[in-house]
Amino acid sequence: MSVIPERVFIREVGPRDGLQNESKILSTDDKVVWIDQLSETGLDYIEVSSFVSSKWIPPLADALQVFRKIRRVKGVTYAALVPNVKGLEQAFKADVDEVVIFLSASESHNHKNLNRSIKDSLNNCRDVCQRALSEGLSVRAYISTVFGCPYEGHIPFDKTMGIAQILLEGGVHEIAFADTIGVSTPRQVSKFLDLALKLVNSDRVSLHFHDTRGTGLANVLTGLEYGVFKFDSAIGGLGGCPYAPGAAGNITTEDLIYMLKGMDIRTDIDYEPLMESAMFIRDRFAERQLPSHALQSTCSTLS
Amino acid sequence: MSVIPERVFIREVGPRDGLQNESKILSTDDKVVWIDQLSETGLDYIEVSSFVSSKWIPPLADALQVFRKIRRVKGVTYAALVPNVKGLEQAFKADVDEVVIFLSASESHNHKNLNRSIKDSLNNCRDVCQRALSEGLSVRAYISTVFGCPYEGHIPFDKTMGIAQILLEGGVHEIAFADTIGVSTPRQVSKFLDLALKLVNSDRVSLHFHDTRGTGLANVLTGLEYGVFKFDSAIGGLGGCPYAPGAAGNITTEDLIYMLKGMDIRTDIDYEPLMESAMFIRDRFAERQLPSHALQSTCSTLS
Repeated sequence: MSVIPERVFIREVGPRDGLQNESKILSTDDKVVWIDQLSETGLDYIEVSSFVSSKWIPPLADALQVFRKIRRVKGVTYAALVPNVKGLEQAFKADVDEVVIFLSASESHNHKNLNRSIKDSLNNCRDVCQRALSEGLSVRAYISTVFGCPYEGHIPFDKTMGIAQILLEGGVHEIAFADTIGVSTPRQVSKFLDLALKLVNSDRVSLHFHDTRGTGLANVLTGLEYGVFKFDSAIGGLGGCPYAPGAAGNITTEDLIYMLKGMDIRTDIDYEPLMESAMFIRDRFAERQLPSHALQSTCSTLS
Repeated sequence: MSVIPERVFIREVGPRDGLQNESKILSTDDKVVWIDQLSETGLDYIEVSSFVSSKWIPPLADALQVFRKIRRVKGVTYAALVPNVKGLEQAFKADVDEVVIFLSASESHNHKNLNRSIKDSLNNCRDVCQRALSEGLSVRAYISTVFGCPYEGHIPFDKTMGIAQILLEGGVHEIAFADTIGVSTPRQVSKFLDLALKLVNSDRVSLHFHDTRGTGLANVLTGLEYGVFKFDSAIGGLGGCPYAPGAAGNITTEDLIYMLKGMDIRTDIDYEPLMESAMFIRDRFAERQLPSHALQSTCSTLS
């Protein structure tokens, strides 16, 4: 386990990927309080919201207000999902630090989700990326369904990496390879990284797991063993109704941090304020039990 | 990952370790139906019940009746927890295949749990073991709190291994090293196995994780990477009220099997009947959401 990184960076995606998939809509004020809490935990990256049409994502319709009301802490990147140049204009108004673009490795999923081909999505991504870069913003990209598609099943990893290379050549600085429906196991992650890290340096790779089948942290462990040092996660394990197909929550930030701390891997994130922000969001979603193990275990003492 | 075993054996502990820690008491008939279902899944080991005084463990007071009513399937080992020679006599009456003895690596936990010193427990274990062996039964042992004690914190691994070696010399054929309060991370498991596998062959080692902090399957992965091929788990992730300190459930059998299948590791367990037995137990514990991810994900298709 000699290649395990000494320092890991977390992209907190709860306010966007988490809330987007919850049936309950959090108030703007609650979002602002919560994100302000997150800014004080030592997290250096928060995906705050999305400028996708509010018609499609009602829980994030207040993206602009949220960005205007949150307190910016130095050293924290406040990012937003942007679907197209129109959304990018909103993101400029919101003074985001980083733009996040997205498409799918699966043609069927891309059509269902974005109503166009991967090729058209790549053209759109190029336009958004160029415009964002010209305004001095950095650009991150999601590739979804990397480890499996609800419509097509397995997607060849070289297809994903072909998309990744076009995005990186277009100026994207980091790609989140996403297990959107949470089907992967350590073996798939290992096979993917065998290919991916030959083509892309690990500093441009983030792994984005959903914990649909409980393999999320085992997959992270495999990533760590390959030297990957960036992971996406969400406070509380937010996201996805347990009864919506393919929509279970992200891996849980506080459980991930617990594991990393236990492995003596530095994150510079303080566990106590992180748990406070998790309890805040738990109380807001009291009607269902969030997947977070840390929230359910009464004793949060680190071993 | 070349040492990862090709075949893994699961010790299903749901009927004992799971039910023992549930506040609801399952009826004898339901237990029998459930265990009979488990016998048809391909599982070759079921820890059926416990002959600890019913005063202490009311949910398992019907151990003898359960053993008498279940249908025995050839090739399946039906085991029972036995605290002392008196309990062993009951186990003989129940015609168990294997006796499971137990003590703690932590002096304080052993006192709280068994009301005696580790030394006295070892003497008791020796008596039970000798008597069981003389009747032709095999003996398995739990060492609990190996990765952390709620009273003492970290327990030196060489203390655990000293206890393990006494047990093995006394005729125990396999030891389940238990993370009773579910605090371990892959690094602790790795450090433990660095020592343990120098002293004991892996065919005598089972790892018993509770998923209190979500690290259970990541810990299993580390075990696999060390060549460990026996793991304890419970259907549904049964066991432990989420609000009882240090008593969260075992890792979930169906999630473990999902991961192992995805890693092309053979278990000879059929996923479909396993999920049926999980759904049976979910319906019996409908008042709370069991931790099983497989039960919560609507799509149980393997990737």
